[in-house]
Amino acid sequence: MDTHFRPVALEHASRLINHGPTVLVTSAFGGRRNVMAAAWSMPVEFTPPRIAVVIDKATFTRELAMASGAFGVCIPGAALVDVVYAVGSESGRAVDKFAKHGIEAVPGSVLGVPLIESGCSAWLECRLIREPHAEDTYDTCFAEVVAAAADERIFASGHWSVRDDNLALHTLHHLGAGHFVRGSGVLRAKPL
Amino acid sequence: MDTHFRPVALEHASRLINHGPTVLVTSAFGGRRNVMAAAWSMPVEFTPPRIAVVIDKATFTRELAMASGAFGVCIPGAALVDVVYAVGSESGRAVDKFAKHGIEAVPGSVLGVPLIESGCSAWLECRLIREPHAEDTYDTCFAEVVAAAADERIFASGHWSVRDDNLALHTLHHLGAGHFVRGSGVLRAKPL
Repeated sequence: MDTHFRPVALEHASRLINHGPTVLVTSAFGGRRNVMAAAWSMPVEFTPPRIAVVIDKATFTRELAMASGAFGVCIPGAALVDVVYAVGSESGRAVDKFAKHGIEAVPGSVLGVPLIESGCSAWLECRLIREPHAEDTYDTCFAEVVAAAADERIFASGHWSVRDDNLALHTLHHLGAGHFVRGSGVLRAKPL
Repeated sequence: MDTHFRPVALEHASRLINHGPTVLVTSAFGGRRNVMAAAWSMPVEFTPPRIAVVIDKATFTRELAMASGAFGVCIPGAALVDVVYAVGSESGRAVDKFAKHGIEAVPGSVLGVPLIESGCSAWLECRLIREPHAEDTYDTCFAEVVAAAADERIFASGHWSVRDDNLALHTLHHLGAGHFVRGSGVLRAKPL
């Protein structure tokens, strides 16, 4: 399959989640892999690019991420809404959710984490920064972004290009209970 | 002025920022007050409702929040896009941004932080949870939500109601450099 994914410079990586999209967190260790939806993530630093994401300690993803020291953050397009909700509502301990939902993964070039391009607008390959207190107390996992890429049809030259003709790649933002809004309708603030 | 704001039950407070809106962080101490825009925030726990927000250590907001042990998180509607960008681009050390931009504030009932209702869809009054390591290393400030309220025209009975007739209150999501998308166009995932 042809890919529209192109590398994103690390100094632009935070822009991929700056606007608060719901993401898919991917992980793998010891021959197992998993994908879950996460509404709770944010950048915490531009350079080096660092992020925080809440991964509940009861999840299989948390177990794989801690064991491997890595995870992926993939940004699903609006067309994946049913898959996002499904993988956010079931555990991957007993089932390979990639196989179940027909999700293709490519291995990250730096850490080997499974990354999703088909249907996604972008991904970030992340190395966990161990912070036991934040992990234990707030389920908040910090990580450094070591590679990033985006679909050039919606993110190119370090900028999002959200248009009417790329609606399927617009980001999803979870309101709760399977209801999402789409990040659409660009507004430009008055220049300062 | 009539207000459309109604209290939000604390167990529903995380839903107000679950979808990643850009927010306004408000603070006050010793006769000074401030408001800044923040794209980087997220819930970290449902009950008790806790959130994390990145507040750079160089900002006046950080100084006021640390001194008072409190801050507000206000969720601006789309109609406030110019104000959001402006207060995110200037410091409040030398100027009262509320006065400069004609922003009305009401005092929070629990902690007295200035909260913005006019033009906003919701607010959360937050008590800082001191976490010196996360604050120092990641500028990440954890807090517990002690009160919350929302404009009943867009959030009622614990749920967002994003419709074509309340466009001015749809949330803003900052792509960067003054370009925002609006959280619009509700998608309902297929029930599980």
